[in-house]
Amino acid sequence: MKKTALSELARRTGEPAISWLMKLTLDHPKLISLAAGFTDNASLPVAEAQTVLHDLLASPAGRPALQYGSTAGDALLRELTAVRVQSADGHRDARVHDPDRTLITSGSQQLLYLTTEALCDPGDIVLVEDPTYFVFLGITQSHGLHTRSIRMEHDGIDLAHLEQVLTELKRAGELPRLKMLYLVSYFQNPTGRTTSFAKKRAALELLQKFERAAGHPIYLLEDAAYRELRFTATDERSALATAFSHRVIYAGTYSKPFASGARVGFGILPPEIFTAVARIKGNHDFGTSNLLQQLLARALASGAYAKHLPLLQRRYAAKAARMTNAIREHFPAEVRWAEPQGGLYVWAQAPRRRTTGVKSRLFQAALQQGVLYVPGELCYGHDSARRRPNHEMRLSFGGAKDADIPRGIERLGRVLQAG
Amino acid sequence: MKKTALSELARRTGEPAISWLMKLTLDHPKLISLAAGFTDNASLPVAEAQTVLHDLLASPAGRPALQYGSTAGDALLRELTAVRVQSADGHRDARVHDPDRTLITSGSQQLLYLTTEALCDPGDIVLVEDPTYFVFLGITQSHGLHTRSIRMEHDGIDLAHLEQVLTELKRAGELPRLKMLYLVSYFQNPTGRTTSFAKKRAALELLQKFERAAGHPIYLLEDAAYRELRFTATDERSALATAFSHRVIYAGTYSKPFASGARVGFGILPPEIFTAVARIKGNHDFGTSNLLQQLLARALASGAYAKHLPLLQRRYAAKAARMTNAIREHFPAEVRWAEPQGGLYVWAQAPRRRTTGVKSRLFQAALQQGVLYVPGELCYGHDSARRRPNHEMRLSFGGAKDADIPRGIERLGRVLQAG
Repeated sequence: MKKTALSELARRTGEPAISWLMKLTLDHPKLISLAAGFTDNASLPVAEAQTVLHDLLASPAGRPALQYGSTAGDALLRELTAVRVQSADGHRDARVHDPDRTLITSGSQQLLYLTTEALCDPGDIVLVEDPTYFVFLGITQSHGLHTRSIRMEHDGIDLAHLEQVLTELKRAGELPRLKMLYLVSYFQNPTGRTTSFAKKRAALELLQKFERAAGHPIYLLEDAAYRELRFTATDERSALATAFSHRVIYAGTYSKPFASGARVGFGILPPEIFTAVARIKGNHDFGTSNLLQQLLARALASGAYAKHLPLLQRRYAAKAARMTNAIREHFPAEVRWAEPQGGLYVWAQAPRRRTTGVKSRLFQAALQQGVLYVPGELCYGHDSARRRPNHEMRLSFGGAKDADIPRGIERLGRVLQAG
Repeated sequence: MKKTALSELARRTGEPAISWLMKLTLDHPKLISLAAGFTDNASLPVAEAQTVLHDLLASPAGRPALQYGSTAGDALLRELTAVRVQSADGHRDARVHDPDRTLITSGSQQLLYLTTEALCDPGDIVLVEDPTYFVFLGITQSHGLHTRSIRMEHDGIDLAHLEQVLTELKRAGELPRLKMLYLVSYFQNPTGRTTSFAKKRAALELLQKFERAAGHPIYLLEDAAYRELRFTATDERSALATAFSHRVIYAGTYSKPFASGARVGFGILPPEIFTAVARIKGNHDFGTSNLLQQLLARALASGAYAKHLPLLQRRYAAKAARMTNAIREHFPAEVRWAEPQGGLYVWAQAPRRRTTGVKSRLFQAALQQGVLYVPGELCYGHDSARRRPNHEMRLSFGGAKDADIPRGIERLGRVLQAG
C-alpha cells in the first residue's frame, strides 16, 4: 500500500526548524548553540518554584491544584493576568482588560495555534512582518495559508508598505481572504525590534479602513512574548490599551519571564474570538495543567514573580552586552547589527553575497567550528514577489552559557572573516 | 459588519458539553454532580507530589525541569512509559514498545486531537463505538468529519456490525474516506465496558481486510485512558502487544491514575504517524511542560506511582460499590445497569419512553432535586440511519464526595420512581 492516510494538514506540515535546531543542540552538547530560543538556565527561579510548590501543596489549595480545572483557566490567574497587562499599559484605576476574555494557555505558542485555527481556512491570507517568528510560519504553512510579508523599519513595520499591500489585495479582490496581521511587537523574534505604540495604532486604523472591502473584521494578533524581557525601565504600551480591544488578540506568556519549563501563557481576546478559541481549546486539552497555573498564580500573588523579574532582566542585559561586545571585537565591519533593548536575540546582517542558509559554506563552516545560529532565511515567509533574503543570522544570547557567548561569537567571527 | 471572520472549523465547533457540565458543577457548589469526569479528590497524591517536586527542585535536575525540553518529550519519561505499557502487555524481556515512537502529550486528550488532525480532512469518516466518549465527538464535529457508529456488546464492539458497516462503506465507494476506528478500550466512557483482546485483534483484522479497497492504511485509535483504573487484579492486554503495532495508535494517560491537575498523557504510534503527530505538536506547543514530565518520571522511577496506584484503585472500587449499592436500593427495577470493573462510570439505561436529555422532564427534575448526570444522548454520534438513543445516563462516581454518592443516587431514584 503506497498511499498515505495522512490529512492534507499533516502533509503540509514540514519538520519544524525549531525541532532540528533543538535536536542538533541536545545531540551535540559541545556545540555552542546561539540558535535555540532557550531561556537562561542560571536565572531560572528554582528556589522560588520550590517554595511556592511546597507551600501550595501543604495548603488546602494543594488538592484542587492536582485536580482538573476549567478550560479557560484558573479564575485567580486570569484576574491577576488581566490586572498585570492593564497595569503595564498604564491604566491604574479603570478596569480595562476583562478577566472574562483572558484565556490561560500552554505557552503563548498554543494561543497562536488556536487563533490560527479559529480564524483561518486553507487559502486564507495572513500578513506577517518580514522577517518574522519562524514557528508561526510553520503554523501558517501547516494550515495551507498564504502569507504576505510587510517590510520592517527600525521601529516596526513599514506603514506605507502595509497600506500598499492592503491596496493590492483589495484590487485583486483578495481582501475577503485576509484574516489578520501578526506582529511580534516587543523585541521581535528575530530582529529584536519593538513596534512603537503609534505604529501599532496606525496599523490598526489601516486594517479597519479595509474591513468594508474585506466584508469581515481584520484582526491584529499581537505576540508580546518578549515584552517583559526588557533591559530598560520604560515599557512601550500595548495597542490593547486603546479602543481597539475588539480587534486585538494579545498573546502573552509567563514562560520566558519566569520558567519556560512551566509553559503557562495567556491571551486577551475580543469576546467573539475568545468564545471560539476557548471552545477549540476544550477539544485540545480542556484546560492547561492546574498545577502549573497555581504555581504562576502564587508566584504572582506573593510577589515572587515581581521580585524575580528585574534579576532576570539584568541577567539578559548582561548576556546581550557580552554578545554585542564580542561581535564588536570579532565580526567584520561589513556585518550590520543593532544593540538589543530586550528579548533574546541579536540580528546580524551580512552583505548580500554572504549566504547564511543551512547549505551555505558559512553555516557548514560554523558548524565545523562548533557554533550554531538560526539562518535568517528561515524567518522569511514565502513571497512570490521576491527571493527570500538569505544573508542574515539570528544569534540568541538567551540559552548559551556566559563563557560560551564570546567563544561562540569569536568562532563565528573567524568564519565570517575567512570570507 | 455582520460577517464573521471565523474559520469553518471555528463555526463547526459547538460549545463542548464538558464545558457547560463542568461550569454547572463549579457554579453550583451545592449541586451533587454525578456528571463531571473529575477524579477523586481524596486520593490525589498531594504528599507524593510535594516530596517529588521538593527533591526534584533541590537536585541538579531541578534547573532543566524549569527549562524548555524537546517536542517529543523527556527521554527518561518516554523510556519509562514504553517499558510500563510493554510490561502491562505481558512482555517481560523483548523490547516491544519503542520509546522512539512514544510521544508525551498534555493529557491523552491532546493525543486524540493531534491524531485527528494528522489523519482526517473534512468529509472523512471515523468509526466510533455507539455510545462513545462525547469530547471525541466534539473533535470530529469540529473537523467536519462523519462518524459511523458501531454497536456495542457487553465485551466491546459488535464485530458483525463492524463488518456490515465496512461492507456498506465499500459498496458506497466511501472507504477511501475512512481513516480510523476509535475505541475506548478499557472501562469505556460512558458504558464502563472493556473490549476483550480477542475482539480488538479481530477488529484490526477486519480493518485490514478493507484496506485494499480504501487504498490506504486504516488505523485503530485505542484510547486506554482508564486502563489503570481497574478494580481487579487482571489486566486485559492491549492490542499493541500483537503484530499490529503499525496500525495501532495507543493513547494513555497519567492524569487519571495519578494527578489530573498534572495533565501528562502519552501516545505510542506507528512511526509514520509519530512523525506527523510530533510535527503538529511542535506547532501546538513544542513540548509538554518539562516540570510536569519530571514530576511523572520521578514518581514512576521512585516507585511512588506504583505505590499510589493500588490505593487509588481500591478507592474507586469502594466508590463504585457505594454507587451500585445505592442504585440497587433506590432505582426502579426497570432501569438497567452493570457493575463496573474499573473506570469512573456507571451506565444506567431507563426504558425507552423515559427520555433523559437536557430538556427532558427527568433531567430538569433531577436538577431541581440538586443532582446532575450526563444525558446519554450526548454520547451518541450523528447517524442518519437511526434516532439518537436518549433514555440513558452516565453516572460518575469519580469526582463526587463519598457521602454525596448515595445521596445523589437517592435523589435521582426519587425522580425515576416518580415516573
